[in-house]
Amino acid sequence: MAPRSHFKIPKIPEMTVRRLSVYTRCLQQLEEDGVKTISSQELAERFNLNSAQVRKDLAYFGEFGVRGIGYYVAGLKAELQRILGLDREWAVALVGFGNLGSALFHYKGFSRQGFRIAVIFDDDPAKAGRTMDGVPILPMSELPREAKAKNLQIAIVAVPAESAPEVAEKLVAAGIKAVLNFAPGRLRTAKDVRLKNVDLAIELESLSFYLAQGSR
Amino acid sequence: MAPRSHFKIPKIPEMTVRRLSVYTRCLQQLEEDGVKTISSQELAERFNLNSAQVRKDLAYFGEFGVRGIGYYVAGLKAELQRILGLDREWAVALVGFGNLGSALFHYKGFSRQGFRIAVIFDDDPAKAGRTMDGVPILPMSELPREAKAKNLQIAIVAVPAESAPEVAEKLVAAGIKAVLNFAPGRLRTAKDVRLKNVDLAIELESLSFYLAQGSR
Repeated sequence: MAPRSHFKIPKIPEMTVRRLSVYTRCLQQLEEDGVKTISSQELAERFNLNSAQVRKDLAYFGEFGVRGIGYYVAGLKAELQRILGLDREWAVALVGFGNLGSALFHYKGFSRQGFRIAVIFDDDPAKAGRTMDGVPILPMSELPREAKAKNLQIAIVAVPAESAPEVAEKLVAAGIKAVLNFAPGRLRTAKDVRLKNVDLAIELESLSFYLAQGSR
Repeated sequence: MAPRSHFKIPKIPEMTVRRLSVYTRCLQQLEEDGVKTISSQELAERFNLNSAQVRKDLAYFGEFGVRGIGYYVAGLKAELQRILGLDREWAVALVGFGNLGSALFHYKGFSRQGFRIAVIFDDDPAKAGRTMDGVPILPMSELPREAKAKNLQIAIVAVPAESAPEVAEKLVAAGIKAVLNFAPGRLRTAKDVRLKNVDLAIELESLSFYLAQGSR
């Protein structure tokens, strides 16, 4: 395996990054099933992927396949995890501790991938000052100090839509580099801050698409 | 516009369907900005899309562009909404009314796209029998009757991981045709039931990817 070290980041499509996450999960499952090596064709067939797409996506990052063998499952998984930044722990700030914030705090999938919610921000006086499973809930005024002290780089925004733009501004001002936004409506941030707007309705639409096609 | 009426559904990649949702949102924004027509190049530039991809995705469903003009914004939006099944209302069942279920119930994005949560199922005696904003919360035993009475076709699963497989079985038995699963771990269902597992960690991974690249 010889990962290229100087590829240009902006050239990698968002969808490729998303698929890397999917491939990582497929490789995880193969590993659990005791599979040691797999070809891109077998991988594609087993998980309903496109083998040409798999090869093209991986080619952005290096030459991972071995002629006559395919991919080493454990090795490729480790490489993809490294590429996705999953070979380390990220201290994450959660902003907003209502129903959604609470659900996201307890969501098992984040910590499994190395995303540890290190601090919760909520200005509600009934919440700020308390802790949840050992994690402090603080008012937003504590954000700049906490961001430095805990080396926070990622924030999850789970506040109502009307508060989200102000929250995003404060996060950027505090030096947060990446924001995952669950508040409805698209946020915008400074150019050097990565922002991802989660739109849960899109997931439902991929279902209604198939139902609608079937009913025609 | 001349949509093809007999295209084969299985040939349409999931990612294409996902992008149709994204295009619909872009067109919505263009419409709000008063834009009447747009070329695939302009569309791509403005929303950071790939213009060849846009044309390829749309080509599955017909010939929407007009030479020398591009796409009619309102017309294309309406076509995509029809294709995605967003030209009607879907009665949705929500299973599980804990933190996540409650957050999803109040999530504005669903009803905006025509997904109406018509009934909530939760076996917790403290919840079942009550209503939330006029929507009944019922025990799972009521599912078969409700599914018929309300013509439920889509269910959102927001129960703990350990309950999810049993819930999925009951949903399929009740005739539900599409399941959006938020419970951690991948569910499987019968072949004629559409299942979408939501993995919120994937969204965070697309952020850590860029942070990890930047730190190298």
